Amino acid sequence: MRSLLEQEIYSQPEVIARLLDRELSRAQAIVAGLPTFNYTLIAARGTSDHAATYAQYAWGAIAGFSVALATPSLHTLYKAPPRLDGALVVGVSQSGQSPDIVSVVEEGRRQGRPTVAITNDGSSPLAAAADHVIELHAGPERSVAATKTYTAQLGVMALLAAAWSRRPERLDELRRLPETLAATLQVASGVAARAERYRYMEQCLVVGRGYNYPTALELALKLKELTYVMADAYSSADFRHGPIATVAPGLPTLLVMPTGAVYADMLDLAQELRARGAELLICSDVPEALALGTTALPMPGGLPEWLTPVCAIVPGQLLALHLAQTRGLAPDAPRGLQKVTRTV
Amino acid sequence: MRSLLEQEIYSQPEVIARLLDRELSRAQAIVAGLPTFNYTLIAARGTSDHAATYAQYAWGAIAGFSVALATPSLHTLYKAPPRLDGALVVGVSQSGQSPDIVSVVEEGRRQGRPTVAITNDGSSPLAAAADHVIELHAGPERSVAATKTYTAQLGVMALLAAAWSRRPERLDELRRLPETLAATLQVASGVAARAERYRYMEQCLVVGRGYNYPTALELALKLKELTYVMADAYSSADFRHGPIATVAPGLPTLLVMPTGAVYADMLDLAQELRARGAELLICSDVPEALALGTTALPMPGGLPEWLTPVCAIVPGQLLALHLAQTRGLAPDAPRGLQKVTRTV
Repeated sequence: MRSLLEQEIYSQPEVIARLLDRELSRAQAIVAGLPTFNYTLIAARGTSDHAATYAQYAWGAIAGFSVALATPSLHTLYKAPPRLDGALVVGVSQSGQSPDIVSVVEEGRRQGRPTVAITNDGSSPLAAAADHVIELHAGPERSVAATKTYTAQLGVMALLAAAWSRRPERLDELRRLPETLAATLQVASGVAARAERYRYMEQCLVVGRGYNYPTALELALKLKELTYVMADAYSSADFRHGPIATVAPGLPTLLVMPTGAVYADMLDLAQELRARGAELLICSDVPEALALGTTALPMPGGLPEWLTPVCAIVPGQLLALHLAQTRGLAPDAPRGLQKVTRTV
Repeated sequence: MRSLLEQEIYSQPEVIARLLDRELSRAQAIVAGLPTFNYTLIAARGTSDHAATYAQYAWGAIAGFSVALATPSLHTLYKAPPRLDGALVVGVSQSGQSPDIVSVVEEGRRQGRPTVAITNDGSSPLAAAADHVIELHAGPERSVAATKTYTAQLGVMALLAAAWSRRPERLDELRRLPETLAATLQVASGVAARAERYRYMEQCLVVGRGYNYPTALELALKLKELTYVMADAYSSADFRHGPIATVAPGLPTLLVMPTGAVYADMLDLAQELRARGAELLICSDVPEALALGTTALPMPGGLPEWLTPVCAIVPGQLLALHLAQTRGLAPDAPRGLQKVTRTV
């Protein structure tokens, strides 16, 4: 029997199609009705925080908004929330339950700022706290590690970016996502056979940049949650400012580098890491890039860069799933984790 | 002969004293002369980005400003800078040379926003790009790994927070910092004798929260740069949202937990990790906390929480220094790193 995790990974094309179907016009209506704001403040934790990091790029480049990531402890433990003048306040949480995320949205409302909740549960405390709610419609996520709700959160961020841009071609690009996601699941299916090589891997690095910096963060988290490998994620720029010192020959280093504006920078890093003897795992749609690695995590081409993160995470999800199985671990229930984490 | 790194670590009380002496009135003048802004946007990389993360807490809690961390690739590789309406734009770089950081400050100026540079080189491109410059006065940093320029950057962030707060007691607290830093170097000197235990450590975790989340980030970076140990940093809240799954018995886990609003949360985590069999290294001024660990990284008490990061990093710097020596590594010149990293 397939694990819940595997079923949820394979349901992603359908989840994104449903999301676009149900929330596209709502996102447009929310965007049209929002009062003026200068910047956006997003509160999120864990996987949701990676979707928020994606919004820093998508909302910045496509919609022109500066995005701040909230520091919830200022609102909860320190009881010293900053002034939110000029902010659109957004809370992101699959369950909508985490008190610290709810606190930031409540503070936005208290200060008279517009607020939006992005959640898989329209009846959650987070949804109740916000002026506007966008639901993920991902269905119950029964595996502890988030997969379909992550890509759905990326979908919501992309949807809002497209609505803000008022450019119909952005929406057309979005509508092709479910199909490209399905193609990704197909072209990446060979990853299953590569997992065994990493049976005894104890640590690895994951590097991406720009739109796919959050892909690196999320993939490292999946590896940690599902396989207990110490996986450390970096943007290629921060990586060069110090952590590159940890690269010894043989260190598995996974590079997320689809076609786009940051590809040349990532290719340069791939070549440097190869010269240092690192073992490269390459997630890309470019044959030249895939050929640099010991292990290919292929994805289909043709996607505009701003939407690549929705597909680029998929080969990594499959790697984490099969690596967990190869290691004899239960992918649906990692040790020491619950599905809903309530932090203050 | 003592390494440059060791000399620079021990110079920190003097560096902070000089900084306060030379920049206190300038910081007050800058703050008084700035036009109105709604939020601050800080561009920084590596160690400087950890000082920027400290500013998220210090400027948020003490001065009431929301702080966004810039995504420089939007300005450079994507050539799609966001609108910066309402922002005070701040660039932080020891050398003032990194083109991506300079780009963000230049964009702020282009959009007519007020700009501030925080750098150790008043004649650098970053200083030239900004309306106002605050210098670190740390003297040349000859060791590749940043220590005194990090604490000096924290000092500048604290100085600005105090100036914005217009509360004289904040400045009084700041003036006591050099003395407490000197005391920290004394009480933490025993760390040298503890380094040998970790001679063969391959990975470790570093956890902090709130004001000391940046301490965790910076300490993990020092361990990576100087000892090549895979050190992964988390806020205790994000840690519970997934990465806690990687904790196996014996995993060295360093907790930064001085007295303050987040102490109870950190103590709770320390007890949970102990129950899971992790090996704890505790940085704290609280004897009860230090007693939970196999290794104590002590710091003096009496410091208000908002200033603890300036001292809490010191026992960690000493641990990284002595661990590098115990491993036969050259602390002044880690492999594969240059002092000035120019990223675009």
